[in-house]
Amino acid sequence: MKAVITDIEPRLRVIDLCHNIEPQNVISAAYVLLTSIPYLPSGSVVVAVVDPGVGSERQIVALNSDHFTLLVPDNGLATMVVERYITSNAWTIEWERFRSTAPSATFHGRDIFAPAAALLASRQRTLEQIATPRELSSLIRLDLSPQQSSQGIIARVLHCDRFGNLVTNVEATCWGVIADTGWYCEIANEIIPVVRTYAYVDEGEPLAYIGSSGFVEIGVRNGNAAARYGRVTSIRVFRGNS
Amino acid sequence: MKAVITDIEPRLRVIDLCHNIEPQNVISAAYVLLTSIPYLPSGSVVVAVVDPGVGSERQIVALNSDHFTLLVPDNGLATMVVERYITSNAWTIEWERFRSTAPSATFHGRDIFAPAAALLASRQRTLEQIATPRELSSLIRLDLSPQQSSQGIIARVLHCDRFGNLVTNVEATCWGVIADTGWYCEIANEIIPVVRTYAYVDEGEPLAYIGSSGFVEIGVRNGNAAARYGRVTSIRVFRGNS
Amino acid sequence: MKAVITDIEPRLRVIDLCHNIEPQNVISAAYVLLTSIPYLPSGSVVVAVVDPGVGSERQIVALNSDHFTLLVPDNGLATMVVERYITSNAWTIEWERFRSTAPSATFHGRDIFAPAAALLASRQRTLEQIATPRELSSLIRLDLSPQQSSQGIIARVLHCDRFGNLVTNVEATCWGVIADTGWYCEIANEIIPVVRTYAYVDEGEPLAYIGSSGFVEIGVRNGNAAARYGRVTSIRVFRGNS
Repeated sequence: MKAVITDIEPRLRVIDLCHNIEPQNVISAAYVLLTSIPYLPSGSVVVAVVDPGVGSERQIVALNSDHFTLLVPDNGLATMVVERYITSNAWTIEWERFRSTAPSATFHGRDIFAPAAALLASRQRTLEQIATPRELSSLIRLDLSPQQSSQGIIARVLHCDRFGNLVTNVEATCWGVIADTGWYCEIANEIIPVVRTYAYVDEGEPLAYIGSSGFVEIGVRNGNAAARYGRVTSIRVFRGNS
Repeated sequence: MKAVITDIEPRLRVIDLCHNIEPQNVISAAYVLLTSIPYLPSGSVVVAVVDPGVGSERQIVALNSDHFTLLVPDNGLATMVVERYITSNAWTIEWERFRSTAPSATFHGRDIFAPAAALLASRQRTLEQIATPRELSSLIRLDLSPQQSSQGIIARVLHCDRFGNLVTNVEATCWGVIADTGWYCEIANEIIPVVRTYAYVDEGEPLAYIGSSGFVEIGVRNGNAAARYGRVTSIRVFRGNS
Repeated sequence: MKAVITDIEPRLRVIDLCHNIEPQNVISAAYVLLTSIPYLPSGSVVVAVVDPGVGSERQIVALNSDHFTLLVPDNGLATMVVERYITSNAWTIEWERFRSTAPSATFHGRDIFAPAAALLASRQRTLEQIATPRELSSLIRLDLSPQQSSQGIIARVLHCDRFGNLVTNVEATCWGVIADTGWYCEIANEIIPVVRTYAYVDEGEPLAYIGSSGFVEIGVRNGNAAARYGRVTSIRVFRGNS
């Protein structure tokens, strides 16, 4: 993909955001994408390819904001970015408009995403030239929101980072979660406090905290929460006496 | 290596092709190199260092085409690139011609490959200045071709990608393999059809398909063929009734 | 981090040194940092973030030499670089001087290190503007030196590379270790000779050698010493009859 981009315009600057999303994990990618977008230089063209449906009828879409243009497969990967940043129409990328030969069936990153991104970023083409408008509401969206219950917030894990920290779908400001104010997480029958950072618990002990992108995370100080808890399916976030 | 290159000429652009070839797996590297070469900007200097013989008497060679210059250890890594792209002489890199101190015994990537590539790419040196011509036929080549048998094509795995897809040495156009026309692969006593892409089989089911570089691959839809089949030594590719 | 840097000054060149230090392994990072520094272009700003104390009271420090400026957490990561390259004062980075909002509690790489490095490298700020001088001797330093005993040099493993080679803390020139002159390593009750490179032993056999940064390493030819020896705590390096 980088070779294709460089071949189209060698002056384009490529920034690697992430190369180790778990295979087919569109939810994890949706989270990582959301956390990267606000830090990019204005005018960036962002490419996100976690694409288990490659070669099927799924479409490739472009989303446009004042700050960035995003290319993604229409599989829900853009869910969190759309909710926060996108208000205008979406676009369907039409590869026939910028390549003369058919793309491969399994590597659209190289054959469609990379050339489309390079053509847009270098201003050799506009979105109008390589894509067709579509309703934003027609995109596939994943239901990634936590549920309020009488027992607290029923959360799920969006992403596991390379340290084994488990990022939940509870955005702290939306749900009023504040560190060191009596909030707790229940995971695998353990109840752990929401504190400010790792240093608030002993080595090897679990903790919850508000991560660097504003979501409640579960970690283990100098340890690995993913290894401790395995593939947990549900987490409860609540305020009160533990 | 990137620091060395940048120190020689900071305007050189470095494109990362792959950093996770299995240690010592020259065959896997030979395949990845073949698949990257055609997408690089014309005039690229390509460095490929999978080099279990580093520090021994093995030589470092340069290969030249109209499109690129390639630096590799003489261990067969260039086998597939040579077969497809190289017609002229090879060259032996002579480090004494561009560095005054001896290279380390175990990191020729940093001490020979990187400076040689940077000197060539920045046109501070020519191949004639840092290398000696040798016969192309004198290079070590690996036998990576499949065998025709009465039972079909006897194939092997060249490469396993990060999704666990197994790339065979059967190039579809050379052997007449076309998706959805009655071709099959037999692997570990399973017979699976050659179809167009993942979407043609159910979740978790194996499939064969013609990969993005034209070779027959075996995958599992939203799964991992390497985990399913382990280190298979032989695959049969054939046309007919399964 | 790269997005933040690029947003501050898109003409800055970013060189990836290492992205796969074992989580929290400050010693491994100290070694990798030492081995990278001498190859960087003069004037480089180097950022090293292996930072288990992020969000605690640990400080972020800058170190300055004629050749480079280094930003690290004050946790010993700079130990080996300080011993070899630093003679002047250290500096404490004061984030309040270049950002108006508080950093996150867990991602100072993005919120402090990256902007500080970009501001320094682009000469938008000087160290005097964003940091306060402190005594070099006040930095946390790790004791990473081997011990001389009557049985030889008692060494430890600093770093395990992706091939499974074990890098010890015995710098060959300091301790007079020379390949092929009767030096040996004892590890897990095996005694192995210090030779020049992998080719001096048979496939699958262990060897010791002086690695590409001058430290004694233990490897297995076309194999993996970390897998063979596990997490060894002590290695003896000695000269004499095995």
